[in-house]
Amino acid sequence: MTITVLRLGHRPQRDKRLSTHLILCARALGAERVIYTGMKDPRLEEGIANVVKEWGGSFRLEYTSSRRSVIRNWNGKMVHLTMYGLQAHEVINEVKKNEEPLLIVVGGAKVPWDVYEEADWNISVTTQPHSEVSALAIFMHLLQGDAALQHEFPGGRLKITPNPRGKDVDVEGGRRKRGSAKTKSSELT
Amino acid sequence: MTITVLRLGHRPQRDKRLSTHLILCARALGAERVIYTGMKDPRLEEGIANVVKEWGGSFRLEYTSSRRSVIRNWNGKMVHLTMYGLQAHEVINEVKKNEEPLLIVVGGAKVPWDVYEEADWNISVTTQPHSEVSALAIFMHLLQGDAALQHEFPGGRLKITPNPRGKDVDVEGGRRKRGSAKTKSSELT
Repeated sequence: MTITVLRLGHRPQRDKRLSTHLILCARALGAERVIYTGMKDPRLEEGIANVVKEWGGSFRLEYTSSRRSVIRNWNGKMVHLTMYGLQAHEVINEVKKNEEPLLIVVGGAKVPWDVYEEADWNISVTTQPHSEVSALAIFMHLLQGDAALQHEFPGGRLKITPNPRGKDVDVEGGRRKRGSAKTKSSELT
Repeated sequence: MTITVLRLGHRPQRDKRLSTHLILCARALGAERVIYTGMKDPRLEEGIANVVKEWGGSFRLEYTSSRRSVIRNWNGKMVHLTMYGLQAHEVINEVKKNEEPLLIVVGGAKVPWDVYEEADWNISVTTQPHSEVSALAIFMHLLQGDAALQHEFPGGRLKITPNPRGKDVDVEGGRRKRGSAKTKSSELT
């Protein structure tokens, strides 16, 4: 099952960092694409394109002015993440049975009712207020299990080797940047 | 094991919404407290206090000017979430054995080396860049399993009843607000 995330109602001034975090979360956990609505934001797109170039993979960010056309023309199933929905851990097995492309819709400020109506599942993570970023992260982890944490991102310039106490980054071409508590912190960010 | 989150380097202008999301994520998934450093931010504190009042539970947000004193005086174990650390799904069983109070440290912009040194575990979620909000969410879910999604928040004014297609909110005193695709959207947010 491929995963696409539809982020509603992006506002460049107010949401730039949150949308960036949300989009990077989708990418890191294996979505192949995020489509966003609201205001088109070249700086957001540029920031994400830079991450993809540096860190690899074939993730794409796309803008659309029409939420309705994405939803109406979606050839697969649709989950809407909302704090009012059914508990994620209770419906996840049903969603997992799906093999069609999955669209995960994540609100902005106010989600129009047609999204609730057209979703195959309206799903909540905890029914408490928190964040679309944490809701998306946990939902994608529930959906894929720990495979969500092990996607490959070929072709990037940078790759981290997990390290218990410092920083270890492979840079394309065989160079290696390492840092530890004994390295000057200016050498690595 | 109780969970406290230490959020480093909050900047009111730049981070208000991200810190709010991070703190609400910690609360929703069962942390009993978030301590933050950086600049003290009364608006952040007020926003969180309002959520706790409305939605219940005994979660607390505290400010400290000294990261070092929180870490040095911590009576328990400490996890530092960093993209450079060991893979969360590979070390989680070791962390789960801990029964002492757990401090989860989550960066801001640049995390000083003493945090890497003093942590019992430096832990990464995917080793890809994404968000401290998604990293914290997935780590807390790995740590507690689906119990992370089922914490109780007694004493709040509002409580959601999960709904497959609309909004169903119990308001203290027996009042109930319901919305569906057939309700005018202005009736409920």
